[in-house]
Amino acid sequence: MHLVVDGYGADTAKLQDEELVRTFLDEYPDAIGMTKMIAPQVYTYHGPVDEDWGVSGFVLIAESHISIHTFPDRGYVNIDIFSCKDFNTNDALEDVKTTFGLPEVKVWRMDRGTEYSTPSEAHTGMVRERSSIVSGGGPTDG
Amino acid sequence: MHLVVDGYGADTAKLQDEELVRTFLDEYPDAIGMTKMIAPQVYTYHGPVDEDWGVSGFVLIAESHISIHTFPDRGYVNIDIFSCKDFNTNDALEDVKTTFGLPEVKVWRMDRGTEYSTPSEAHTGMVRERSSIVSGGGPTDG
Repeated sequence: MHLVVDGYGADTAKLQDEELVRTFLDEYPDAIGMTKMIAPQVYTYHGPVDEDWGVSGFVLIAESHISIHTFPDRGYVNIDIFSCKDFNTNDALEDVKTTFGLPEVKVWRMDRGTEYSTPSEAHTGMVRERSSIVSGGGPTDG
Repeated sequence: MHLVVDGYGADTAKLQDEELVRTFLDEYPDAIGMTKMIAPQVYTYHGPVDEDWGVSGFVLIAESHISIHTFPDRGYVNIDIFSCKDFNTNDALEDVKTTFGLPEVKVWRMDRGTEYSTPSEAHTGMVRERSSIVSGGGPTDG
């Protein structure tokens, strides 16, 4: 399951807090039952456009990842929580809204990865699994 | 723009090739006009389930990223190309199909990030931009 959240009107102080981003990336894999492969990588970026600065971070978890890109001057943040295990995307959405102070979000949910979590069905199950491809929705307001 | 590709029936030799993954992550940001923040991070993962092993890699580019997770024993791969600049997702899809030998794919395209690439519209443009939220499609076969 892959949850994508774009947050608007976010708390600027939180979006520029490298430690907040690092702590979330460090602790959230455990919260959804996943295993980190490496410690989170977090960087503060300054680009040619002043307003584009922000904190970018990434943690690889077992065959999936969590990523965060913040734009403090825009109150904007991109968050991806992608796990090859199923997890409660409603709970995760609430968690990121609280963590980063997000009054307004765009949300996408993609059913990916989990269909391959049962090895015995990996090859024989493809046709059956593919019948569910079009069931995913477009973006929704959360 | 965020292009998500899940590939099936992929070339096993390519999926276990850590250098292929690293080279793609190293070179593709340039191909879509983006700037790497750091060198790609690439790891081969072995989990508790034998078939779950694979290569995971990501590269942070300016406020966005590219990530790849491969499952060689399953012929399965997850690819994300997320750029805060617009790029041709059809071309990128063909590039990843060729690079990893993907006869069958699931594809999602999410219009995110780019709406904030013009600083002067960052705040005043939100309502206008939000009117386009629901125009994104669900997954499609590519």
